[in-house]
Amino acid sequence: MSKDSLKSYLYDLASRKPAPGGGSAAALVGATGAALLSKVANFTVGKEKYKGVEKEMFQVLERSGMLHEDFMKLCSEDAIAYKKLSGAFKLPKDDKTRKKKVQEALKEATSVPFEICKVSHEAIKLALLAAEKGNTNLITDAGIASLMLKCAFQSGLLNIEINLKSITDNAFITNLRKILEPMGKEVDAINEEVTEEAERHLKGEG
Amino acid sequence: MSKDSLKSYLYDLASRKPAPGGGSAAALVGATGAALLSKVANFTVGKEKYKGVEKEMFQVLERSGMLHEDFMKLCSEDAIAYKKLSGAFKLPKDDKTRKKKVQEALKEATSVPFEICKVSHEAIKLALLAAEKGNTNLITDAGIASLMLKCAFQSGLLNIEINLKSITDNAFITNLRKILEPMGKEVDAINEEVTEEAERHLKGEG
Repeated sequence: MSKDSLKSYLYDLASRKPAPGGGSAAALVGATGAALLSKVANFTVGKEKYKGVEKEMFQVLERSGMLHEDFMKLCSEDAIAYKKLSGAFKLPKDDKTRKKKVQEALKEATSVPFEICKVSHEAIKLALLAAEKGNTNLITDAGIASLMLKCAFQSGLLNIEINLKSITDNAFITNLRKILEPMGKEVDAINEEVTEEAERHLKGEG
Repeated sequence: MSKDSLKSYLYDLASRKPAPGGGSAAALVGATGAALLSKVANFTVGKEKYKGVEKEMFQVLERSGMLHEDFMKLCSEDAIAYKKLSGAFKLPKDDKTRKKKVQEALKEATSVPFEICKVSHEAIKLALLAAEKGNTNLITDAGIASLMLKCAFQSGLLNIEINLKSITDNAFITNLRKILEPMGKEVDAINEEVTEEAERHLKGEG
């Protein structure tokens, strides 16, 4: 991924190639949100006015950088998981191992979007910190980052659900949904908080 | 933009450079959504099962490709508008033309995010078409595209509002909001329709 030009990545995304697809694109949007959080932190640290929050902003900078890298890895890994799954689907119908291999590949294919959800959930917490304590000149960047991280989470969720549709292991499904449901609620709630914080500033109250 | 690697674009976004910022990033997310719509259309045309919707899907393909390009242009233009604005702000405070130049630059700086909103609004209509009539194997891609286009719209809106905060021409503000408000409602409503369509398929009803 690292040497791909942005233009050619997006053409591949648009093309009639099976990958990259929505999962990879979701990770890209997450990476974009995480990068914007680093920008907010970068414009906060070292400023006299924000001396009191400098330690927290250095943490935002460090963590958002790590999550940015996590997203970029997921952006590539999604394509690999996809290939494995379509390989399993292509096994001859009378292959006795086909059912088992497809089920395994389906479970594996949920793992990348699940990671996207987890990383988005981590990153959006930093967006709240950036919105509440970061340089207020960049309040819309914090707000936009939050919107992107919520979008990445919801996109990951859709890609999990399409795989769950064909998974027969009910315990696996129940377990995954039990983790994701509260996570999704928290992502929504945090995004609302960030949006309210941004609106407060935009109305001149901040 | 065309030769920038994805990695270096995101590092610039994360860095302590004034541009690219949230506006450019919003356009990138829009471009990603538009590209995914092209993918859905590319996997629909030419298939016997979807012969009845082929004409519409060729239109989705053509339009999404154009909007993808529009977004990419906006991705670069946002940085230019930003530079002009910060140039105006840097004029000496006793410069008699400063106030006027800042106001002009602020109005210009709303124009890129306003275009992002307009293009997102156009593109999300295609997402509905792709979700309702496109290849159902790619229903989550249509759903993810819709989430991204809504995200791009909302991000554009935040970047318009931060400029409106400093604009003194009330007629300009009222006029812009009058256009954006119904557009925003429509974007939300379409995204809900697309999400419902995707959920219907994920529950096995599609």
